[in-house]
Amino acid sequence: MSEYKQGELLSKIELPHDVKQLPHDKLPQLCKELREYIVDVLAENPGHLASSLGTIELTVALHYLFDVPNDTLVWDVGHQAYAHKVLTGRKDKFPTIRSLNGISGFPKRSESRFDCFGTGHASTSISSTLGMAIADALHDKSHHHIAVIGDGSMTGGMAFEALNNAGASNANMLIILNDNGISIDKRVGALSRYFTTITASQKYNRLKNRIWNMLGGNTMSYAKHKSFMKKVLLATKYVFSGKSTFFEALNIRYFGPINGNDIDELLKTLASLKKIKGAKILHIVTKKGKGLPMAEQNPTTYHSPGLFDPHTGEIQHNNSPVVHPPKFQDVFGETIVELAAADERIVGITPAMLSGCSLDKMNERYPNRTFDVGIAEEHAVTMAAAMATRNIVPFCNIYSSFMQRSFDQIIHDVCLQKLHVVLCIDRAGLVGQDGATHHGVFDLAYLRMIPNIIIAAPLNEMELRNMMLTALHTDSPFAIRYPRGNGYNIEWKNKMEIIPVGIGEKVYGGKSKIAILSIGSIGNNAWDAINILKNEGKDAAFYNFRFLKPLDKALADDAFANYDTIITIEDGVITGGFGSAISEYAAEKGYHNRIIRLGIPDTFIEHGTIRQLQELCGIDAASIADLLRSL
Amino acid sequence: MSEYKQGELLSKIELPHDVKQLPHDKLPQLCKELREYIVDVLAENPGHLASSLGTIELTVALHYLFDVPNDTLVWDVGHQAYAHKVLTGRKDKFPTIRSLNGISGFPKRSESRFDCFGTGHASTSISSTLGMAIADALHDKSHHHIAVIGDGSMTGGMAFEALNNAGASNANMLIILNDNGISIDKRVGALSRYFTTITASQKYNRLKNRIWNMLGGNTMSYAKHKSFMKKVLLATKYVFSGKSTFFEALNIRYFGPINGNDIDELLKTLASLKKIKGAKILHIVTKKGKGLPMAEQNPTTYHSPGLFDPHTGEIQHNNSPVVHPPKFQDVFGETIVELAAADERIVGITPAMLSGCSLDKMNERYPNRTFDVGIAEEHAVTMAAAMATRNIVPFCNIYSSFMQRSFDQIIHDVCLQKLHVVLCIDRAGLVGQDGATHHGVFDLAYLRMIPNIIIAAPLNEMELRNMMLTALHTDSPFAIRYPRGNGYNIEWKNKMEIIPVGIGEKVYGGKSKIAILSIGSIGNNAWDAINILKNEGKDAAFYNFRFLKPLDKALADDAFANYDTIITIEDGVITGGFGSAISEYAAEKGYHNRIIRLGIPDTFIEHGTIRQLQELCGIDAASIADLLRSL
Repeated sequence: MSEYKQGELLSKIELPHDVKQLPHDKLPQLCKELREYIVDVLAENPGHLASSLGTIELTVALHYLFDVPNDTLVWDVGHQAYAHKVLTGRKDKFPTIRSLNGISGFPKRSESRFDCFGTGHASTSISSTLGMAIADALHDKSHHHIAVIGDGSMTGGMAFEALNNAGASNANMLIILNDNGISIDKRVGALSRYFTTITASQKYNRLKNRIWNMLGGNTMSYAKHKSFMKKVLLATKYVFSGKSTFFEALNIRYFGPINGNDIDELLKTLASLKKIKGAKILHIVTKKGKGLPMAEQNPTTYHSPGLFDPHTGEIQHNNSPVVHPPKFQDVFGETIVELAAADERIVGITPAMLSGCSLDKMNERYPNRTFDVGIAEEHAVTMAAAMATRNIVPFCNIYSSFMQRSFDQIIHDVCLQKLHVVLCIDRAGLVGQDGATHHGVFDLAYLRMIPNIIIAAPLNEMELRNMMLTALHTDSPFAIRYPRGNGYNIEWKNKMEIIPVGIGEKVYGGKSKIAILSIGSIGNNAWDAINILKNEGKDAAFYNFRFLKPLDKALADDAFANYDTIITIEDGVITGGFGSAISEYAAEKGYHNRIIRLGIPDTFIEHGTIRQLQELCGIDAASIADLLRSL
Repeated sequence: MSEYKQGELLSKIELPHDVKQLPHDKLPQLCKELREYIVDVLAENPGHLASSLGTIELTVALHYLFDVPNDTLVWDVGHQAYAHKVLTGRKDKFPTIRSLNGISGFPKRSESRFDCFGTGHASTSISSTLGMAIADALHDKSHHHIAVIGDGSMTGGMAFEALNNAGASNANMLIILNDNGISIDKRVGALSRYFTTITASQKYNRLKNRIWNMLGGNTMSYAKHKSFMKKVLLATKYVFSGKSTFFEALNIRYFGPINGNDIDELLKTLASLKKIKGAKILHIVTKKGKGLPMAEQNPTTYHSPGLFDPHTGEIQHNNSPVVHPPKFQDVFGETIVELAAADERIVGITPAMLSGCSLDKMNERYPNRTFDVGIAEEHAVTMAAAMATRNIVPFCNIYSSFMQRSFDQIIHDVCLQKLHVVLCIDRAGLVGQDGATHHGVFDLAYLRMIPNIIIAAPLNEMELRNMMLTALHTDSPFAIRYPRGNGYNIEWKNKMEIIPVGIGEKVYGGKSKIAILSIGSIGNNAWDAINILKNEGKDAAFYNFRFLKPLDKALADDAFANYDTIITIEDGVITGGFGSAISEYAAEKGYHNRIIRLGIPDTFIEHGTIRQLQELCGIDAASIADLLRSL
């Protein structure tokens, strides 16, 4: 049993079966207890707070009415699924959320049979729900199939691809559009405005739904009721502008909007939707952060607030007098503003991570030159490429693991045309508690294979700034990848200097016959290891390559010529990355040195602190020191 | 001057400027001459025929009215842009289309300043046009920005991402929806049905457009004209079902549909649209194959018909009595039907390449188990993953270069969850005349870095069949990549056998100290080279690895132990692929053999025949033989 207080009802609930035993009128109380439990736990165990607070009523209603996992339930992105976790056998483990060996912050098939499909990246839920619905239909099973997707995720292209496919199929599925007007930052785009308009016209929608029901809920029968329809037409004012037909144009029956924090309204609506076959969408409006006033008022801040007071909601700020180095994100944000001030060609582009990547700083100063395109990585990259054809230098900032979504656009639109786009790859390497779906460990390997691109990774904040300046002064595709979290220097605001492209640096010679070749900020761990061993006379040489591509072959020659053992280290997959580049080069040149490649092994890494995960992978300073000692 | 006859008007036209000089009433004649020229040239120089025949009037109208490249024009996918090429300085080079050193089959920035943005993969045109519109706005330039996108491409997710962004911007752009009811195969999906409904209600649309114009073409002013609107409401019958509001929900002003093969209607409409600011869409209906009756009737056959009679349209079939080995595509198509007959769990999934990949064979036999999801690679892969969770074994067939679009879904939805999806990667390796955008050369490298996946590549047709059976009998993600075009064996219909996963084969021992290690069908070139040299006593050993992952380490050990020089060969990028895997392994084991990696060098390869391009890359049999001789 968890150390956190559980209310009277919640304390007796282990599985959805137990929820179903409750009388209808106890459900509001269960929601209240769930909300308190989640707030209490998250106050001390940081996680995604506001999204999950908004979906508590929905979670209870779904498990009350449906039979998961026979019926399937997919939570898009998944950070709103905490109540679902609590109600599906993970209540007592809930305080371990996002910690090493604890439960994941996202739905995960290997964690629970109630997690029908793992999520983490946005916009996958309609595709997966459609797939499960079709599979069950092929097996002649008539289960229900439910996707819960936020309005932000709805802007992702694959959500649309799936809608287009679902509307043409006979699949039995319910898409719940969880509309809280916000993804992480305030949502953007035309669809968002559209949702707002729909929401504003609830009266019209109520009327329209009544009509639908009277007609038997079938689009086709409309034609038979022309005279009746005429009256409806006259009685409504939103009709001509067609404010609810986006989904119906895709042949998906639309219901709502209803208040998604009203359990009675949810139960009533969901119960009647259970009886309607085919693809349908229920639009619910929920309040992100519901129940915690400070979170309701500042949903972006409370998306993932860290430690906070469970009663007042007040966030615990670090009041220690010690000054910490800034985050790489802040350095990026300040630096792009500095560069943009001096060069009008610069614009910033982000797919829905304005504050996460610190482009909000640019947005404050140059709103006309800052573009949040929504959850739309593919579009972001191609739009950037196009801007580069018209004398603009786009700095397109995307989280490493999300940039996987724009792999084709990087090849086909940026690199094939050799356009001057600066890809700023945030959250590269291990990201910690967000776990397997979010680690940015593939980027070095998947970019390295693409012709025409320059790939850089800074050792520290100053090098990040220098690389940003350098990128501006080339005319090639240029990728800069840097990690999540704090840097290493209090005094980071150097005068920026252009670095010669493809040139690294021998930082330290060492006393042994071992050299460590490194790319990016993980080099600091290597450097720490070397410092640990300096006194033991077993330290190694240290090479900071800076660029994965073009590779500094002269620097590699120097290392191969002067040291017997070459250790490569990178904060990315060993397969195909920096160590692979060094191995390829060694094979090409016929070097016979021993090569040891450190990095992320060929397995998916789960969640934990970055330090813990680095230990697991053997790329923390202590592990590197141990390796050096053992050689 | 090209050897093909040019009509009176066309013969005097080099650039769009010349088109603009023609009196309005000569334009139909120009269209006729263009059509004849394109048909004459393509009859002897195979290319994409039907799409370009459908867009001739549009091309002439656009160059007549707009000032490209100051105004920007992007042809989505680009295979409908042949008339554009002819009118923009490439008329005489047009017969070289798709041939080595000739002009490309797709728009290409490096080929002409009139090709504002290169295309090849679908659904990029709205993103790129928006990017250029925003860039020009930042520079205070008021050019026009035009995207021409087919109804098929409109199903791709990134088109929607861009629409959503465009609708929220003030960008000055015109999207021309070129609706011919067909992408390559007949189009699918709900949006397609929707377009059909719109098209059917032209009367309503004409009325509605008149109203729009009377109101000044501004959505917002509607509210001021309520009484007027009421009359409109009563007068129309499509209103309530909102049949034209898909785009307007996204805040993009919709016009049309109009007949896109009627030059007068096009000119009139485009001229008035020039005056309307903001994002707008013009829906035109064109006939794919227009002007060549056989192509009009069979647009799928005439998408890329090969050689044909320019007068009758009759396709030249190979009547030689020599029997050729079948295409790998046919082998795939026949084999999946064979497997599906024996195992009900199997389904086939394709993103809009039903006939191209031969899943049409499966569709004929098992229509309920064959899914064409539209141009939607992201959705296809995630849907497949989801089906795999419900006791279905999806064979998801995607062209290699298009599969780049689903890189994230392969990682996040398939491999992270270790789901039993069989990725059948068609057109892997060099594809020939389609050129740089279409070569499937990255797949080995980008799949290799992903944990949990098995990657196989067959040497020949029989091995393809065995690998398909093997994939069915594993429970892991399983990728099989095979090339475009003919195989090697007349008798290919072997009794399928399961191959041990990760086990390759030493095919031949050789007489020299050289071993060739190969993956996939490119091994046939190596084998041919070995046979060329057998008599010279300089032949090499031949290892067919079959699997890139897991790598057959014992087989590699054998090669490293018995031969001095190791040559790896693959039909994919050298950086990060099979040769890289062998180099990594050699470094790991401390092998000191010389390693020579053959494959696609670190540059984009243009168009030409596969044989020519293999020569360029040094991976044809003669080049390999030369290399062996030189060692």
